[in-house]
Amino acid sequence: MAALFINPHEDPAPWRAALKRRIPDLEFRVWPDVGRAEEVEFAFCWKPAADSLEGLPNLKVLFWLGAGIDWLLEHRARVPDVRIVRLVDDALTACMTEYVVLHVLRYHRSQPQLDLQQSQQLWADLPQRLPWNRTVGLMGLGVLGTDAADKLKALRFKLAGWSRSAKTLPGVECFHGDDGLVPFLNKTEILVCLLPLTAQTRGIINARTLGALPRGAFLINAARGGHVVVEDLLAALDSGQVAHATMDVFEPEPLPVGHAFWRHPRVTVTPHNASLTDPEFSLAVVADNIARYRRGEPMVNEVDMAREY
Amino acid sequence: MAALFINPHEDPAPWRAALKRRIPDLEFRVWPDVGRAEEVEFAFCWKPAADSLEGLPNLKVLFWLGAGIDWLLEHRARVPDVRIVRLVDDALTACMTEYVVLHVLRYHRSQPQLDLQQSQQLWADLPQRLPWNRTVGLMGLGVLGTDAADKLKALRFKLAGWSRSAKTLPGVECFHGDDGLVPFLNKTEILVCLLPLTAQTRGIINARTLGALPRGAFLINAARGGHVVVEDLLAALDSGQVAHATMDVFEPEPLPVGHAFWRHPRVTVTPHNASLTDPEFSLAVVADNIARYRRGEPMVNEVDMAREY
Repeated sequence: MAALFINPHEDPAPWRAALKRRIPDLEFRVWPDVGRAEEVEFAFCWKPAADSLEGLPNLKVLFWLGAGIDWLLEHRARVPDVRIVRLVDDALTACMTEYVVLHVLRYHRSQPQLDLQQSQQLWADLPQRLPWNRTVGLMGLGVLGTDAADKLKALRFKLAGWSRSAKTLPGVECFHGDDGLVPFLNKTEILVCLLPLTAQTRGIINARTLGALPRGAFLINAARGGHVVVEDLLAALDSGQVAHATMDVFEPEPLPVGHAFWRHPRVTVTPHNASLTDPEFSLAVVADNIARYRRGEPMVNEVDMAREY
Repeated sequence: MAALFINPHEDPAPWRAALKRRIPDLEFRVWPDVGRAEEVEFAFCWKPAADSLEGLPNLKVLFWLGAGIDWLLEHRARVPDVRIVRLVDDALTACMTEYVVLHVLRYHRSQPQLDLQQSQQLWADLPQRLPWNRTVGLMGLGVLGTDAADKLKALRFKLAGWSRSAKTLPGVECFHGDDGLVPFLNKTEILVCLLPLTAQTRGIINARTLGALPRGAFLINAARGGHVVVEDLLAALDSGQVAHATMDVFEPEPLPVGHAFWRHPRVTVTPHNASLTDPEFSLAVVADNIARYRRGEPMVNEVDMAREY
């Protein structure tokens, strides 16, 4: 059995490698090298050329490599009558939210200190804060920030949010732009960075902004290494202005052996795994659905062309 | 200013100690030793004797030390016309859910392994699982289990639940009784114990039940130390049947220095702080409300006698 990659817009090589790791028994072919067409069971497809979906008599599932199916609806006549699954970056969002919630709770509940106490065989209570008296500040209020806010709200944290342009999110005190940054930071006890990296946001986590946080605040950076001015963060950690930082992203990556972050007692380093990235992540979702298909279970995010989603 | 404790059903000593720590400027008095009645600003009250709420001309807030206000409604005539706040164990529930979510995510995202990698300055990806392909099994489906299930569901985990008697929870595959235990454990990759400790549940986490988990499962015990047969858990950890265990509760407590759990590389020990317990916890809530009252902010769980809740 084979999978046919029909995506003129993307390099097939990482897809081939990921598929080989995840479903070694499935042959990977790249259109127009279809090979024996009757062996093609699955298509991984994005905006295909006019006739590329024709002549596949045993095609069972078309994996659409995008969330929106507007192209498919526009080109209905060309779409074969097979099961269709769209790629929702649900997984990416869910993973990022897991990361944010995990590390917010780790700080909120003093887990790094509890780990230290365990290493000393010390049984001692630490002052516990109620979540509705603890403010988590989210920088970046797109899909990721919004989803993280929802889950943190359910856990009853107080939430503040900051974005370049004005946004409103229910249950989140929203700030924006240059003028909103310091007031936002002034209330933020656990700062989570989920910003896109642009000329305007590069180096946004620096001496000035870290200094605007309440003393002993926590930092979680799951965005890009370029958001952080490393020397400023190290100084803020050493002075106690920042109590602890968790970072998933660095410049460069991998974080070089010997870098101060690796061994800093108040830094947690994760290897840029907060969320999976394409095509590794996409193939995880596709492979999961192929496994579900093979077991006769419902696939996740199957498209109903009649309902148009 | 003073607070008057009017609760013939409970020892006032731990309340006095907790209040002294949290609000040192507030004098603690125990009914019937009212002292100068005009100094009494707050009452901490549960099913008071007939006349104990009379003659307090400056009483501002009556903190009812229970969630249900049926007694107050029945005895309206005796209840002074002051603000009334009921004690909801929201805080207890929220804290327990935090603990469960934190440690489930810690395991789901391989954080103990990532901590180890950091100590080796090793940048390496670990296989990541999607939450909807990971089953968390909750033992105990009361208020705490239900709330934890809600939050884990929002994070998109697959959920199984087990209780002594049959229960149904939306989105949770529920099992019950002796017959349901092994089928429940067979699907559970992260086992969370929130059971009450009874003759029937003592020692429920033992060689037989741990052996019914899929190999490499995780255990989180936030219930009581008596649920776990220590030797059986240590054997399961050593054989790899259980990959890692997090425990908040032990027999006896504090966990003695030198106990195998303290230094076990695959055990996390927390000092019975998953959730705060009365009166420490209750006073945290009351003190928070007193602080809010003093700042002129709305109090949490203020009662509306007209709406009857």
